[in-house]
Amino acid sequence: MSDDATALRHALQERFGQAIDVPDGLPGLDELLRIATHTTHRAWSTQALAPDLLALLGACALSAPSKSYLLQADIVHVRDPANRAAVEALVPSMPWMSQAPALLVFCGNGRRFRRLFERAGQAFTNEHLDAVFNPTVDASLVMMNFIRAAAAVGLVCCPISVLRDRAATLAAQLALPDHVFPVAGLCVGYPAQTRSINPRLALSATWHTDRYDDAGTDAAIDAFDRRYVESRARHVPAGGKPPMSWSQEKVRQYAEPQRADWGRFLRERGFDPN
Amino acid sequence: MSDDATALRHALQERFGQAIDVPDGLPGLDELLRIATHTTHRAWSTQALAPDLLALLGACALSAPSKSYLLQADIVHVRDPANRAAVEALVPSMPWMSQAPALLVFCGNGRRFRRLFERAGQAFTNEHLDAVFNPTVDASLVMMNFIRAAAAVGLVCCPISVLRDRAATLAAQLALPDHVFPVAGLCVGYPAQTRSINPRLALSATWHTDRYDDAGTDAAIDAFDRRYVESRARHVPAGGKPPMSWSQEKVRQYAEPQRADWGRFLRERGFDPN
Repeated sequence: MSDDATALRHALQERFGQAIDVPDGLPGLDELLRIATHTTHRAWSTQALAPDLLALLGACALSAPSKSYLLQADIVHVRDPANRAAVEALVPSMPWMSQAPALLVFCGNGRRFRRLFERAGQAFTNEHLDAVFNPTVDASLVMMNFIRAAAAVGLVCCPISVLRDRAATLAAQLALPDHVFPVAGLCVGYPAQTRSINPRLALSATWHTDRYDDAGTDAAIDAFDRRYVESRARHVPAGGKPPMSWSQEKVRQYAEPQRADWGRFLRERGFDPN
Repeated sequence: MSDDATALRHALQERFGQAIDVPDGLPGLDELLRIATHTTHRAWSTQALAPDLLALLGACALSAPSKSYLLQADIVHVRDPANRAAVEALVPSMPWMSQAPALLVFCGNGRRFRRLFERAGQAFTNEHLDAVFNPTVDASLVMMNFIRAAAAVGLVCCPISVLRDRAATLAAQLALPDHVFPVAGLCVGYPAQTRSINPRLALSATWHTDRYDDAGTDAAIDAFDRRYVESRARHVPAGGKPPMSWSQEKVRQYAEPQRADWGRFLRERGFDPN
């Protein structure tokens, strides 16, 4: 078995806590390995990032499939230092954002679609939840494609979805017009260090054959909670507080409603997501 | 300039109708080229696709970043011939689906998140639009990551988002429980032929620096309409009807509301997307 096949098998074992078969002689193992070892980074080397390279990666990313070919994704490169500082101030809990060589905001765009109807002199008749859903999917596809393009050239990323907690202020800061909304921010740069793999639920919970099967969910959550604690415990200093399980952490994090006003924000931006 | 750099530059010129700089000596050009030349395929070679390979690609895909680490994406592999026939019958306009070696359905999952609260004996306090938005993003990230993993090993894909037009029937067919919903289907197989690149709007419309800028949108749509007609015209037989522009096609396609009942479907699945 090739080095890449062995590394891929190890990465997936660490990721899912189970053995996943890697066929011999598979092409593209180096790329699969990059996909399987994806981790979010929050520390950056001092290597500068050329704006032209960012635009190239953006073009590659925008080659993603588009739902119904409606082309409902946009990217805003937050480049001006004062603008970046204002955007970063929306998330004071993430001071490391300001060290990232680049910050992008991926947006869903329902504006051009409506413009097509205006230009044709026809009423827009698709004012419903799908008009939010569709650009959300497009923006997400483009963001994932960007992360892959970035990884291909040695860059690492950190999605900043918490920016949506301050969506109205962010939209004003980036001059997003009606029917354009942020899906997530993304810090981009060269890595300062290697990072360990964050675990995922076993495939028994997330990969189904023919019919959705919930039977193993509780056991998968229990096993995942243990692996999650183990992976977190590696970073706790001696004598430090033991990490919470995934279940504990998420229940605590969402004990108070999070982004309960997201629907209101979108209505204020002109959508009617019913 | 390397062959891959030249090919990448040509691909992006064809995609966006503009020159995009490719720096010399960039690593990962082969992967960027795969990303930039992505096309949807609807014809498949006879090469069989091992189910184990699908699961491996699924595991790679599920290594995608997850919004707030909530792990809200699932994949259903529709494998049983009778099940596949029933799912394909929901989209009679796409008979080529049945020739695809594999069919997956990417789902948003709000069920496990709620289960964490049930198991902790706490009330779920996040019943709002974001509870739909978040798993939609996760499922989209995983689908895009799957498409990239598939491309790495030489496979091609066709997203089938129109499956959502029959979401309730599809959910029943795949036994999707409450709070699990389809985002898109995906046909997967080896390509029967090469395909030309589908154009995208110029970056002046979709890539913004610091502030969203709408000033060039109309001109970008006009230019795109022309390139769209040119790209479609290549496939029209001599004497055939000239293709519609993108604008004309989309306005006609959405003249009648599409998926206006998507919100109702999600409410029937237990969400309250307000």
